[in-house]
Amino acid sequence: MAKRVAVILSGCGVYDGTEIHEASAVLVHLSRAGAKVQMFAPNVDQMHVVNHCVGKPTEEKRNVLQESARIARGEVTDLAKLDVQAFDAVIIPGGFGVAKNLSDWAVKSKECTIQPDVEKLVKAFHKAGKPIGMCCISPILAIKLLPGCEVTVGQDKECEKWPYAQTAGAVKDMGCKHVNKEVEEAHVDVKNKLVTSCAFMCNAPIHKVFDGVGVMVKETLKLA
Amino acid sequence: MAKRVAVILSGCGVYDGTEIHEASAVLVHLSRAGAKVQMFAPNVDQMHVVNHCVGKPTEEKRNVLQESARIARGEVTDLAKLDVQAFDAVIIPGGFGVAKNLSDWAVKSKECTIQPDVEKLVKAFHKAGKPIGMCCISPILAIKLLPGCEVTVGQDKECEKWPYAQTAGAVKDMGCKHVNKEVEEAHVDVKNKLVTSCAFMCNAPIHKVFDGVGVMVKETLKLA
Repeated sequence: MAKRVAVILSGCGVYDGTEIHEASAVLVHLSRAGAKVQMFAPNVDQMHVVNHCVGKPTEEKRNVLQESARIARGEVTDLAKLDVQAFDAVIIPGGFGVAKNLSDWAVKSKECTIQPDVEKLVKAFHKAGKPIGMCCISPILAIKLLPGCEVTVGQDKECEKWPYAQTAGAVKDMGCKHVNKEVEEAHVDVKNKLVTSCAFMCNAPIHKVFDGVGVMVKETLKLA
Repeated sequence: MAKRVAVILSGCGVYDGTEIHEASAVLVHLSRAGAKVQMFAPNVDQMHVVNHCVGKPTEEKRNVLQESARIARGEVTDLAKLDVQAFDAVIIPGGFGVAKNLSDWAVKSKECTIQPDVEKLVKAFHKAGKPIGMCCISPILAIKLLPGCEVTVGQDKECEKWPYAQTAGAVKDMGCKHVNKEVEEAHVDVKNKLVTSCAFMCNAPIHKVFDGVGVMVKETLKLA
């Protein structure tokens, strides 16, 4: 039987939505493994729209579901309709959309709140003993919702290769365990069936990000 | 010496820009091969903006360069500044952006005109004997600009698997040669140093599109 996997998107573009290459890597690896995939995104406005040439917000308004449909080639469903019983696993790629549209981590950090549908379903997958795969910044959803869980966001010492290493400190401050991993690796929290990989938290060549996401997908499917 | 490859984008999203997964596959395969990549896009308005949930145009205006920056994670240059001498090859992923923003094929088909910078550089790469890689609908640029060239857009018999097979007929009508290929294959026109692969012209699982784009990238680099 093919594993049924829900993939949750948060827009389209690293600075205000889902990181495009992480989402694409998730889909390629799921497809190769023969998984049955359905994509979801919340039907809400983006926190803001960023001009990706200059990295600055614009005055535009865009809808998270509509922009996610660019990655999904039209095939994306309102997150409010996600039925956890219909899936064996859930995967959430990274990108600032996770910290802006699936939560408000980008402005409130450890005091953030999680988008209600996202909170409900992450808890529901966890309670049902179904695996959760996350990469890049997505693990902030887990450390907020699954007390004491173990995740990786890469390495905990900031340098050119690891520009976002301070996130590992936030993981520890939240009472969770951070595990240092390289970009081609994933960490498996067996108890919580939670699989994480750092992806673009590392300043790495894109094929290494692709491979690391592949390990995350494979380990997630193994637990399903 | 690393091969220097220019990648030309046309927006961000299959229905009005670059097909996201084809672009991502091009970048992953180029990265794995150790190529040095620079991305370009024209600094012009999109022909239109499509709501990808419903496949219909909206009233919005978006800029091709700015939207391409979503795929390029900010690192994209105005196509007008592309210096052919600085590169060993050029690759143009598909998506309707090729037929709407790099040309007006979407409305004029065989009578289309090509965006002036695109026309100039495709001819310049060809004249310099530098390879050109294309996938999906991008080969329409070649059949318009390189008389008598050979390309594949997949298969020439329309069916559920090949919904856009009529494009092969247009190739022949333009006096070029169409070569039937499967999604995991590429066709190499040795004389014109032109490498093409059908990508999402085929209704195929995404990992097969990824692999076919990989063959196109590999064959393009071989000729560089």
